[in-house]
Amino acid sequence: MKFSETLIPTLREVPADAVIASHRLMLRAGMLRKLANGLFAYLPLGLRSFRKVERIIREEMDAIGCLEIKPTVVTPGELWKESGRWDTMGESMLRVRNRMSADLVVSPTAEEAVTSIIRDELSSYKQLPLLVYQINTKYRDEIRPRYGVMRGREFTMKDAYSYHQDDASLDNTYQAMGVAYRRIFKRCGLTVIPVKADSGPMGGANSEEFMVESTIGDNTLLLCKACTYAANVEKAGCEPDFSKLSQVNDSSDNMKMEKIPTPQVKTIAELCEFLKTDARSFIKTLIYRAVNVELDLSGAPGCANLKKHRPAPGAPEVYDEAFFAVCTRGDLDVNEVKLAALLKASDVSLAGDADVVRITNAPVGFAGPARLSSVPIIADPAATAMTDAVTGALEADSHFIHVMVGRDWSPWRTADVRVVKAGDLCPVCGGELYEKKGTELGHIFKLGYKYTKTMNVRYLDENGVSQTPIMGTYGIGVDRALASIIEEYHDDAGILWPMTVAPFHVIVIPIKYEDKVKAATDIIADKLERRGIEVLVDDRAERPGVKFNDADLIGIPFRIVVGEKNLPRVEVKLRGEKEAFLAEIPDAVERITAVVREAVRK
Amino acid sequence: MKFSETLIPTLREVPADAVIASHRLMLRAGMLRKLANGLFAYLPLGLRSFRKVERIIREEMDAIGCLEIKPTVVTPGELWKESGRWDTMGESMLRVRNRMSADLVVSPTAEEAVTSIIRDELSSYKQLPLLVYQINTKYRDEIRPRYGVMRGREFTMKDAYSYHQDDASLDNTYQAMGVAYRRIFKRCGLTVIPVKADSGPMGGANSEEFMVESTIGDNTLLLCKACTYAANVEKAGCEPDFSKLSQVNDSSDNMKMEKIPTPQVKTIAELCEFLKTDARSFIKTLIYRAVNVELDLSGAPGCANLKKHRPAPGAPEVYDEAFFAVCTRGDLDVNEVKLAALLKASDVSLAGDADVVRITNAPVGFAGPARLSSVPIIADPAATAMTDAVTGALEADSHFIHVMVGRDWSPWRTADVRVVKAGDLCPVCGGELYEKKGTELGHIFKLGYKYTKTMNVRYLDENGVSQTPIMGTYGIGVDRALASIIEEYHDDAGILWPMTVAPFHVIVIPIKYEDKVKAATDIIADKLERRGIEVLVDDRAERPGVKFNDADLIGIPFRIVVGEKNLPRVEVKLRGEKEAFLAEIPDAVERITAVVREAVRK
Repeated sequence: MKFSETLIPTLREVPADAVIASHRLMLRAGMLRKLANGLFAYLPLGLRSFRKVERIIREEMDAIGCLEIKPTVVTPGELWKESGRWDTMGESMLRVRNRMSADLVVSPTAEEAVTSIIRDELSSYKQLPLLVYQINTKYRDEIRPRYGVMRGREFTMKDAYSYHQDDASLDNTYQAMGVAYRRIFKRCGLTVIPVKADSGPMGGANSEEFMVESTIGDNTLLLCKACTYAANVEKAGCEPDFSKLSQVNDSSDNMKMEKIPTPQVKTIAELCEFLKTDARSFIKTLIYRAVNVELDLSGAPGCANLKKHRPAPGAPEVYDEAFFAVCTRGDLDVNEVKLAALLKASDVSLAGDADVVRITNAPVGFAGPARLSSVPIIADPAATAMTDAVTGALEADSHFIHVMVGRDWSPWRTADVRVVKAGDLCPVCGGELYEKKGTELGHIFKLGYKYTKTMNVRYLDENGVSQTPIMGTYGIGVDRALASIIEEYHDDAGILWPMTVAPFHVIVIPIKYEDKVKAATDIIADKLERRGIEVLVDDRAERPGVKFNDADLIGIPFRIVVGEKNLPRVEVKLRGEKEAFLAEIPDAVERITAVVREAVRK
Repeated sequence: MKFSETLIPTLREVPADAVIASHRLMLRAGMLRKLANGLFAYLPLGLRSFRKVERIIREEMDAIGCLEIKPTVVTPGELWKESGRWDTMGESMLRVRNRMSADLVVSPTAEEAVTSIIRDELSSYKQLPLLVYQINTKYRDEIRPRYGVMRGREFTMKDAYSYHQDDASLDNTYQAMGVAYRRIFKRCGLTVIPVKADSGPMGGANSEEFMVESTIGDNTLLLCKACTYAANVEKAGCEPDFSKLSQVNDSSDNMKMEKIPTPQVKTIAELCEFLKTDARSFIKTLIYRAVNVELDLSGAPGCANLKKHRPAPGAPEVYDEAFFAVCTRGDLDVNEVKLAALLKASDVSLAGDADVVRITNAPVGFAGPARLSSVPIIADPAATAMTDAVTGALEADSHFIHVMVGRDWSPWRTADVRVVKAGDLCPVCGGELYEKKGTELGHIFKLGYKYTKTMNVRYLDENGVSQTPIMGTYGIGVDRALASIIEEYHDDAGILWPMTVAPFHVIVIPIKYEDKVKAATDIIADKLERRGIEVLVDDRAERPGVKFNDADLIGIPFRIVVGEKNLPRVEVKLRGEKEAFLAEIPDAVERITAVVREAVRK
């Protein structure tokens, strides 16, 4: 391909709204142009790399027996109403009413569309497991699209869905997807951080996110310095760190709990000041309201009058509403995602003042676990490790000191419900955790029965009994993966493409595309192309400096410079290296071919 | 690929709403499923053929230097407002207002999006010509989607756009596209009818439609029995057929024009009855109203007071409204598309009664060209060929007889403005024309300056002068091409795929997938796949009859049956042939490989 015959409009200026490297470089290298806020058009150079990422994903999906299908981008609103997501997806889902007054959705994802197809085709257990995927256009109406294709409105996603007879089969596919995802990212050259969700009650992990480190990432990750543990802060666990307990714990074994007056003291900071100690001496007690609680509360304190009911046929039985006291150490925060997961609740939030007053029988600010019997107490291990603590006394202007777990109070459940922070201890090995910001590139997830039940998917098992299949879902953002490659591989001069996703493998730069130099250039390009190597010939009548700068900017791995003085030798350089070497044409061709073939080998 | 490991849900029943072969067979063969009215999902088998059609189109576009890009599917409404199509595209364009109150369009086509990209990148004549294309999702909100993907709401289109310095460059690309389109359809096995538009005033044809014959087609084509002439009825021309003139013409050279009373006679049928002759003796005269007329009318009868003006900057000067008398033979109809093209008018329609009365100075029904001076007369050659005609006399209940062209009336312009019908004469060779119904698969079109002017695309020419490029547009419907292949290649049992677009080249059917038969089956499949042949192994535990029926239904070109009694030979049959032959495995593999390779060669 000749530079003059394609469209690579490189830019010297950095567009003002492009604040991250990939956005800047995709615009500067002529890969991408903005059509409107959050809407980007790929130009030929960008599309070449885009298609290579797509192809790698496709090959790895095909390799694990996942079948490619092509549902529509515009989907019937009816399907979203069936699943219930018409009401829950919010405004980021682009809804259209067409001229026949039919509700349509420009797909943000395709659980519904694919499940509706499978529902019609599935009849027997013999068809299971069934794995399908698409690589197709998606749309999410982001309020603040930014960072180029990293967070655009329209994007391309590989979304796969699997249907199974049982957990074991789902887990097999889940594991295979995990391996395929690792291969995909590796082939793209991407360093990903696989982030497992906490082990659920079933033992195995049920979701894994594939993150790349990114200063603009909207995820906070906790990673262990000593082992491979990595978790999203929403789900990260940690080992209780008893070494950090306040000194007051040491000599207090036999000191009785005692009520002290704490007038005008409402916050933990004020209490620290008042008692001349620090927050690690306190048990922080927060009253939470949870809705649609599936966890069994029979026998739990204050729950005698709660009754479970089934909100819809097929749905699990839940308590509409329940209140809990959540205790943790004064310097720690409650992680509401973990709390909701523990309670199997659809939502948890701090109780309103009126509920707090009713439950604690005291003004807001004086809750504590000792003598609290109106609600179940959920305690973080950091709280149950404290043997001489300060707590609210369930009475205005009063706190208890010398509060001892087991003697003065007992939790209904002890569970990790705290926000884990850098410096906490790894729940796997006890090593020190540190934080990173990350962007999610992919996600594999055991969905369970959510869609197959609400959309009534059925098959007959070995015994002729009608059953509901269990489902998994697996996504990768193609545009975001491409941008992330550039984030990882660039320098001040431009992109440094990994060979597998480079738009071309080789750029040939004739100093002047004339006479002997032109002939040599054409020979090299022809020889390489015959060997399957993708070559861009910069045949433009530009100064060599301009061509070199553009070559560095667009980041083709191999650069061959053809100049009259070196002929019959040419200068070969890898984009990432400082030193070039001279080689005769046949030798250069052979060496480059060998390197490219090895690099793109699956 | 094993049948049991893919998803090919063949159906015995014909779905009730599938009335054409391709729709029926795509559903029955498990290629396609309906998601909603006009929205279809491709299943794995259908997608394989779909991708092959896509690939053929891509290869041929790439081969002529057309550059693939990827604009978005959802496009900003602003662009459509710029071009003016926001107001003219009607309700088939799916418009969405998003949460930020921005107008969006789910693209039905992409002249605006692509032109906006080119506008930003184009600066110099050196960049021209510039040819770009995409193969991407489109949406048109058809009122009555039907015939499966032949007329769906969401579909995939290859749409290309070209930008040029001048007509000659546009014509070069237009010709290259015409050749590429012929290659594309040929490689798909499609018999297309290229339908050229009439030569315009510039001499060359400016659009060509590629049609397939189809009983459900919404185009009527006129084809010549003697040459390759083919035209859409909207634009078809013909040679005046003087042999068909009524006998009354022969002996009337010297008979004077005479007014006769024709009371109670208003229609041509009544006049025929009254004068005991046929419609070919009459000159039918219709009064037309045209709007936005670009044709120069200075000096035309009745037009002295008309003034041209420019409706918008950059737009051509037009007359807001003008009236014309259009004369043709009594048995012929006026083709309003041709009339509008002649007048360069945005719309033509029959004048209202009041205008007819004003212009003809007579009640409706008595218009005629003789003594008519209030409007310009446009006459079809069929009318000007009549030397002894009957016409309205511009007076109630009166007609002229013995009306002679040149003596009694003269047209302002003579031009082909009639509807051509089967039996008319070919305008190229004079052969007899016949009619076919057709469906449009592709279209190449010299757009001119419509978008580049309204969207203000500029570049500097060789002299540094700012210029507007001229533009072409070129589309192919991918889904429709695929369905048309099935329309052309099927029999009662199912599809007969051309090798180039078959989902697999070979289906191997073991009578029972066990022991020696299984081993032989696996060897054949493996040997073929190593040679790049795509093989589907029907490993299902079904009766041979079921497998044979499914093989015929899904239409794989080669069928190999492996049965114990024939081993070491296997039975090889082409889908379209009755007779099978027996061959030893290595021989069968070689022969099949050779045939497939030859068939898919570009």
